[in-house]
Amino acid sequence: MAGLAKGLAILEGFDKSRPRMTISQAAEFADVSPAAARRCLLTLLDAGYVSHDGKYFQPTPRMVRLGRAYLGTSPLALHAQTYLDQARDVLDEAVSLAVWDEGQCLFVARAGASQIVSTDIAVGVRLPAHASATGRALLSALKEEEEIRSFFQRYPPVQLTPSTITDVDALTHIVQRAGELGYATSAEELELGMHSLAVPVADSRGACVATISVSAFTGRIGIDELVDKALPILRLAAEGLGKTL
Amino acid sequence: MAGLAKGLAILEGFDKSRPRMTISQAAEFADVSPAAARRCLLTLLDAGYVSHDGKYFQPTPRMVRLGRAYLGTSPLALHAQTYLDQARDVLDEAVSLAVWDEGQCLFVARAGASQIVSTDIAVGVRLPAHASATGRALLSALKEEEEIRSFFQRYPPVQLTPSTITDVDALTHIVQRAGELGYATSAEELELGMHSLAVPVADSRGACVATISVSAFTGRIGIDELVDKALPILRLAAEGLGKTL
Repeated sequence: MAGLAKGLAILEGFDKSRPRMTISQAAEFADVSPAAARRCLLTLLDAGYVSHDGKYFQPTPRMVRLGRAYLGTSPLALHAQTYLDQARDVLDEAVSLAVWDEGQCLFVARAGASQIVSTDIAVGVRLPAHASATGRALLSALKEEEEIRSFFQRYPPVQLTPSTITDVDALTHIVQRAGELGYATSAEELELGMHSLAVPVADSRGACVATISVSAFTGRIGIDELVDKALPILRLAAEGLGKTL
Repeated sequence: MAGLAKGLAILEGFDKSRPRMTISQAAEFADVSPAAARRCLLTLLDAGYVSHDGKYFQPTPRMVRLGRAYLGTSPLALHAQTYLDQARDVLDEAVSLAVWDEGQCLFVARAGASQIVSTDIAVGVRLPAHASATGRALLSALKEEEEIRSFFQRYPPVQLTPSTITDVDALTHIVQRAGELGYATSAEELELGMHSLAVPVADSRGACVATISVSAFTGRIGIDELVDKALPILRLAAEGLGKTL
């Protein structure tokens, strides 16, 4: 593995559960030698991507620039904001755009709700496909039952709440049904007290490239009511965005 | 320069003006040999950070993960969102958090306005210090006139609009005045038709670590009215956030 690949693996190691790392923690996370981890961290320190307090290394604001490379250049993320903002204004709930990232849903744009208590889906968050409305809407682009099954074999469904469906037959049916309906839901399967609705975004060639979704607390609005209220708005946003792609 | 440093330099090259690059464009941007640029781009391709259409390389969603390393771990960016959202709800204008990044202001968190036409300051955007309210508020933490002058010598002020003040004496006075008042403004000095107001955020040790700012179109609200309306709200947000740091 080249120095560049090792350094990027270490950079990805920093997250909420590992806000800072020692050389040996970085070596363990990225599965490289302590000497290689040390070289990488010192290069990152020198380039200004991490700071060092003598023991721990932690990310600096400069790292934000790297994330912007995609967000600042992808036509999808650039065009989406207007449509997400409009949908959020009507719905008064957070509206997000997600794409595939290695079997998970990666949120790449978001219009925050003006509610003080909002769901915690920020840009850069990744969610498992089987339990999220977004993942099911993305999967519903798969036309063949076998393709859906083989996805769940590659990424086995994990129980996240008491409501999470992990049975592959049941999930395959849910995804196929989402394909027929043109939308997907998840009711407290990702997190207790939260449900969500997602619709696929098709580009001008008809390929599903993303989803637009809305999440709400169950205490604020029921799942059927969420679908009734939000589905036409999300479809309008998805259609508008799709035409720009 | 190690492979890691070269690769990061190339990654930073992707932006709105360079959404995709050939090997030779990447080599030129990062000031490395075409052979080194090729090795870096192929490593990035292999790791899933860029895609390749045979000629051009361009960022993939995976790159967003790197930007999250800071945003997902910095107590500042994590705590700020609630305060920004609250201020945005009251003001109905976009409210942003910025920190220093090598002589420029880097926006690391933002609550978007519910106005359809909003100012274009997204997370990851960098603004020059001399012409932005945010930069002036950050600079106002410098207590000595000499420190302010020496900043402008290191980062010479550039004319961005007909209103941009570039005279170092005048700018030094403006920054000192911002320090006395506890806030800074910029009236169409960054962009015609837009003005902004920023207040410093001090951590629990009293050190200025960030600014909270609001921007608005001149057609919607005058600069004096913006200060009257937004200053108490921004100060409340800055104080609330500061206490968590």
